[in-house]
Amino acid sequence: MTVDYSLYLVIGTENIGERPLEPLLRQAAAGGVSIVQLREKSLNSRDFLETACRVHEVLKTMGIPLIINDRADIALACGAEGLHIGQGDLPPAEARKLMGPSAVIGLSVESPEDATAAGVEYVDYLGISPVFSTPTKTDTAAALGLDGVGAIRALSELPLVGIGGISEINAGDVVAAGADGVAVVSAICSAEDPAAASGRLREIIDKHRNMK
Amino acid sequence: MTVDYSLYLVIGTENIGERPLEPLLRQAAAGGVSIVQLREKSLNSRDFLETACRVHEVLKTMGIPLIINDRADIALACGAEGLHIGQGDLPPAEARKLMGPSAVIGLSVESPEDATAAGVEYVDYLGISPVFSTPTKTDTAAALGLDGVGAIRALSELPLVGIGGISEINAGDVVAAGADGVAVVSAICSAEDPAAASGRLREIIDKHRNMK
Repeated sequence: MTVDYSLYLVIGTENIGERPLEPLLRQAAAGGVSIVQLREKSLNSRDFLETACRVHEVLKTMGIPLIINDRADIALACGAEGLHIGQGDLPPAEARKLMGPSAVIGLSVESPEDATAAGVEYVDYLGISPVFSTPTKTDTAAALGLDGVGAIRALSELPLVGIGGISEINAGDVVAAGADGVAVVSAICSAEDPAAASGRLREIIDKHRNMK
Repeated sequence: MTVDYSLYLVIGTENIGERPLEPLLRQAAAGGVSIVQLREKSLNSRDFLETACRVHEVLKTMGIPLIINDRADIALACGAEGLHIGQGDLPPAEARKLMGPSAVIGLSVESPEDATAAGVEYVDYLGISPVFSTPTKTDTAAALGLDGVGAIRALSELPLVGIGGISEINAGDVVAAGADGVAVVSAICSAEDPAAASGRLREIIDKHRNMK
């Protein structure tokens, strides 16, 4: 599967407040989101799976891959295209074994060392986390900054997605520093007009990719 | 796989305080525990898997099946013999699809209605939860009591394991009411001598099974 990592939306029922999930996804996709990760840390397994199946239905019709955070069982049960694992989740080799050869597997790296550690040979892309400090996720490592993105770019040939504190203000810098795409939560989920916000982000990302 | 549900230990790192896990498991098994469920609600996926692999190593040498609570991915990754699901976990059909035909799958039922609901055809045993009220698990339904055990016994031909507030004082009653086995947490995990506590429980259970 060829995956476009340009604009990577991370979403969960915790991030959307009272907004219904499906319309938000459709708007984000219409605006230019190219891949979606569903991240649920509070739902029980049954509700997580039910949400994942609903999200997958919406995204499938738009040709956008769904990546499930942490839970390989949920990813397999809903037929998601992939799994995203962090440093405290299943080890990459185990994730690959469970998900099979064709699944898209992403790994969060919190340092240049993580980007070359044993196991990265099992994954398809790296999430650089966090690039900037962020209030969305409180259990993250120290911000890597644009220098960190550049350092990891120099070490890895995998597609790189920056995450953490990224908005229209700095998305271009993250791409210029070496990322293939940027992941956002609140820049789209909390936007007044998610389609317009996605469109502006996508334009910035595309412009900076073309400058490289 | 023929499974002996007589004395079913539910254990997790939260339940054992400062006690090391492996010796406790060996003592419990020596005393008569016939099956073990690992239940981890606070560990991240990596630590859960690491713990599950360690527990599985110990139990394998003693021929005792390991059942993983909720997480099919962890069960598959550590090669556990089975999965236990509650009403808020993966639906039984999904659990069976992921775990395969030979896995032991258990389902917690919180009412006689649950014991005959759609999906029970995919599971190998039912956990009656809770039989008595218990401080170990705080998210449980109302206690079903011995009458509840009897009611579910009349409705189901599956092996039944009672759980919740069971100790040496009432284990015999639970078996007499229709359960094939009893599950305990603190009656073994908090016992001064886990092997002796397991032995006494096993003796009570075996005696009441033979009286039926």
